[in-house]
Amino acid sequence: MREIDVNSDLGEGFGPYVIADDAALMPLVTSANIASGGHAGDPQTMEKTLTLAGENGVKVGAHIGYPDRAGFGRRKLHMSAKELELMVIAQLGALAALAAHRGLRLTHANFHGALGNLSFADTDVAKVLIGAIKAFDANLKFIGLPDTEASREAERQGLTVIWSFLADRGYTAPGRLAPRGVEGAVIHDPEAVRRRVADVLSSGRLASVTGEEMTIPVDSILVHSDTAGALDLAHAIRAGISDAGCQIAPYAD
Amino acid sequence: MREIDVNSDLGEGFGPYVIADDAALMPLVTSANIASGGHAGDPQTMEKTLTLAGENGVKVGAHIGYPDRAGFGRRKLHMSAKELELMVIAQLGALAALAAHRGLRLTHANFHGALGNLSFADTDVAKVLIGAIKAFDANLKFIGLPDTEASREAERQGLTVIWSFLADRGYTAPGRLAPRGVEGAVIHDPEAVRRRVADVLSSGRLASVTGEEMTIPVDSILVHSDTAGALDLAHAIRAGISDAGCQIAPYAD
Amino acid sequence: MREIDVNSDLGEGFGPYVIADDAALMPLVTSANIASGGHAGDPQTMEKTLTLAGENGVKVGAHIGYPDRAGFGRRKLHMSAKELELMVIAQLGALAALAAHRGLRLTHANFHGALGNLSFADTDVAKVLIGAIKAFDANLKFIGLPDTEASREAERQGLTVIWSFLADRGYTAPGRLAPRGVEGAVIHDPEAVRRRVADVLSSGRLASVTGEEMTIPVDSILVHSDTAGALDLAHAIRAGISDAGCQIAPYAD
Amino acid sequence: MREIDVNSDLGEGFGPYVIADDAALMPLVTSANIASGGHAGDPQTMEKTLTLAGENGVKVGAHIGYPDRAGFGRRKLHMSAKELELMVIAQLGALAALAAHRGLRLTHANFHGALGNLSFADTDVAKVLIGAIKAFDANLKFIGLPDTEASREAERQGLTVIWSFLADRGYTAPGRLAPRGVEGAVIHDPEAVRRRVADVLSSGRLASVTGEEMTIPVDSILVHSDTAGALDLAHAIRAGISDAGCQIAPYAD
Repeated sequence: MREIDVNSDLGEGFGPYVIADDAALMPLVTSANIASGGHAGDPQTMEKTLTLAGENGVKVGAHIGYPDRAGFGRRKLHMSAKELELMVIAQLGALAALAAHRGLRLTHANFHGALGNLSFADTDVAKVLIGAIKAFDANLKFIGLPDTEASREAERQGLTVIWSFLADRGYTAPGRLAPRGVEGAVIHDPEAVRRRVADVLSSGRLASVTGEEMTIPVDSILVHSDTAGALDLAHAIRAGISDAGCQIAPYAD
Repeated sequence: MREIDVNSDLGEGFGPYVIADDAALMPLVTSANIASGGHAGDPQTMEKTLTLAGENGVKVGAHIGYPDRAGFGRRKLHMSAKELELMVIAQLGALAALAAHRGLRLTHANFHGALGNLSFADTDVAKVLIGAIKAFDANLKFIGLPDTEASREAERQGLTVIWSFLADRGYTAPGRLAPRGVEGAVIHDPEAVRRRVADVLSSGRLASVTGEEMTIPVDSILVHSDTAGALDLAHAIRAGISDAGCQIAPYAD
Repeated sequence: MREIDVNSDLGEGFGPYVIADDAALMPLVTSANIASGGHAGDPQTMEKTLTLAGENGVKVGAHIGYPDRAGFGRRKLHMSAKELELMVIAQLGALAALAAHRGLRLTHANFHGALGNLSFADTDVAKVLIGAIKAFDANLKFIGLPDTEASREAERQGLTVIWSFLADRGYTAPGRLAPRGVEGAVIHDPEAVRRRVADVLSSGRLASVTGEEMTIPVDSILVHSDTAGALDLAHAIRAGISDAGCQIAPYAD
Repeated sequence: MREIDVNSDLGEGFGPYVIADDAALMPLVTSANIASGGHAGDPQTMEKTLTLAGENGVKVGAHIGYPDRAGFGRRKLHMSAKELELMVIAQLGALAALAAHRGLRLTHANFHGALGNLSFADTDVAKVLIGAIKAFDANLKFIGLPDTEASREAERQGLTVIWSFLADRGYTAPGRLAPRGVEGAVIHDPEAVRRRVADVLSSGRLASVTGEEMTIPVDSILVHSDTAGALDLAHAIRAGISDAGCQIAPYAD
């Protein structure tokens, strides 16, 4: 039976603040991208999220973002290659240490916000970022989108890529999300999301927002955690996976 | 031949800022307490300091301080036991990862500023802080002062303590520095420091600022890095070690 | 007709984060204590809160806290008198400038969290903090609790004190809240809060958690913004003010 | 007698850190661009710098930079127009309040580092930044370079521009510095700087690094504060001003 992972960006709080209902979402996912102190996350928040993940048998990875809490990592910050490299290492080191303190081991990583966008498009940046992940731990998997520089670079450097599908977002091409505002860019109806998940898993194919058919690899499905209907979305995604005759399970080690 | 370590607090910069002339001091010491992102230190600064240490065969450890850059870790911040524990783990994790990235391994840790002072006096805090170091890596040594809670706790928990001597500071008792302002609290004359080092190493004994004799263990001698005469101080300490017929060498693994 | 102010701590967000439902609460209060960049608040958050206040005819003041976002100003930080003084000036300056930019003028100030607690108990700190408010603008009012050093110092220095009453908290004496855990420390039932407000306004007297009667001055009633039932609390307080035959209105200029 | 201002970027420290020898430079300049808490500067550092300026009769202005201490404001950060506007207001507000607390009044402003560079080239950004300065205080002067968007926008919005000349830097055109690395980009010899100052003040003309003559307006000359020879540079600039028969004096109110 084919296994499909469900991943989500969790632990995006800071100090007294929270973004998502992590406690409710954690039992619904199988891998967590945990904010590692860049755009969000402090030792307490990281530890709380790791503990929740551990209790739910959820795989843990680092969600690496620009060191810009006020901007939540959504603003591009022109850092040098060296600065990016060391930022990745330091964030991985802190989160991995807190994970080990809870008896857990990081098994994946990916990039958040403006850093993620840059890693999709900029080959040099992708090379540096992926290189830093690999230097830290060559066994880390990379949860990525198809046809992006980051994923290509991960494959080039020999990291296993877990192909993530954004079930509630329209695509223009594999790995290219339709800009918000475009008709079909965001799919709000859980039933539509459920069908979409079932379809893409059954056929391996997806229709773009303009109706072109494309082939798209799917290993994991992303639950957006910070939207109003995050829990409904998670349930819809899980139902869609079952509809397709697949099993919800963490990515294989 | 007896071996004596020379330790110093280095890497206390941040962004464009520096505190000490680390490049000049590094060849004169054998172990470096590197600011691990609390009171000072960012990934660039940590990496630069680690690289310098590696080039000079200097042992590297974490200098853990309150997360208060504006106050340089010199202001007491009332953190809970849990907050302290996770802070230690996260700082160790980040610095250890950057060290590994340079092919180095952390071999010790100690505490900076107001956190250090608290760890001397407060048994509960000392237990939490030392426990966190041990949980991260039970092979880490603790560079400490005699007759303090931190060192007692390190011994209790089975960490090797490297006894550090502050050659340019007057003592009222072992592990008790004379407050600045008291006659003899700070020794500025390098020749006096040199004699003091030679004497304490030869005899194992030290006269307090009020003239009482005390026994004091010495494995390492601290070079204050942020004073005007830091380089002179380092040379004086090294000369004093030689005068006593000891050899300058990093603490044993 | 006697006028009673309703105050609340608002604008306690940071970057993408929020604490309370400020948009829902603002129409229910008459004065807002706005986080001024210490424990919470950045220029965007401050401006959004000021704009909301302006639209609702709500008086604006600075809610000054320790520069410790990760701890939300709830952890005591040992700052010198000079550091405290300049911190107050800088926070007031930033918030006042953003207020002026929206055509508003700050008319009060008070202190948050651990800084507030310290200002209640420590005469020297109270003197410095109140002195800084007065130096910035001697027309600022101080929203305070009776029988605290901060309020005494405000009166001594000639600032008008707006006496605030915490309607959902039990008291042991005027200005002394019963510690959480004590029976009656927190009053959850909106009807009880409503009666309590009506009673204290009608009689000027309040029963402590142990049943002693005390006299307590009340100019304003605090709506805790960060509790689950904040809106219910606000409505209960407003109803209680009406029950007592008083009018809900901002404090007089 | 023509009066020429001498300006410098001062107060660029943070916490325990310093960049320049502000105490030695302050008596040699007539206006100070004081880091206002963005790229550098905290309340203590701002207050110390303002006090020094007051003691030396030096005009004070805000040196506004990106909120990125670790990058010292040298890394471009993609902030929205709104974010930029409020950042300018908040920095001006904090510094102006600290100035008022010392009995001083801000009389100018300008931009630091990557924000400055963006303000030279980007009309929309220049409009927002200058608009925010004007909204805060329309009497503030703008210390700027000729032929840049920031200065053009300042003139358009009716702010007085103080034309600043970088005496130790080669130009390719008015307001265009030769990139470091180009022959003549940085002039290290104090005697050459002195002659250059005397020449440009006498003739109103300057030769570019490639020998073309250009006309350049000069009201003030910048002393780079963070170079090794900052004091020599200041003395050379002052001597050059005297050589040209001009008087060193703060810009006119």
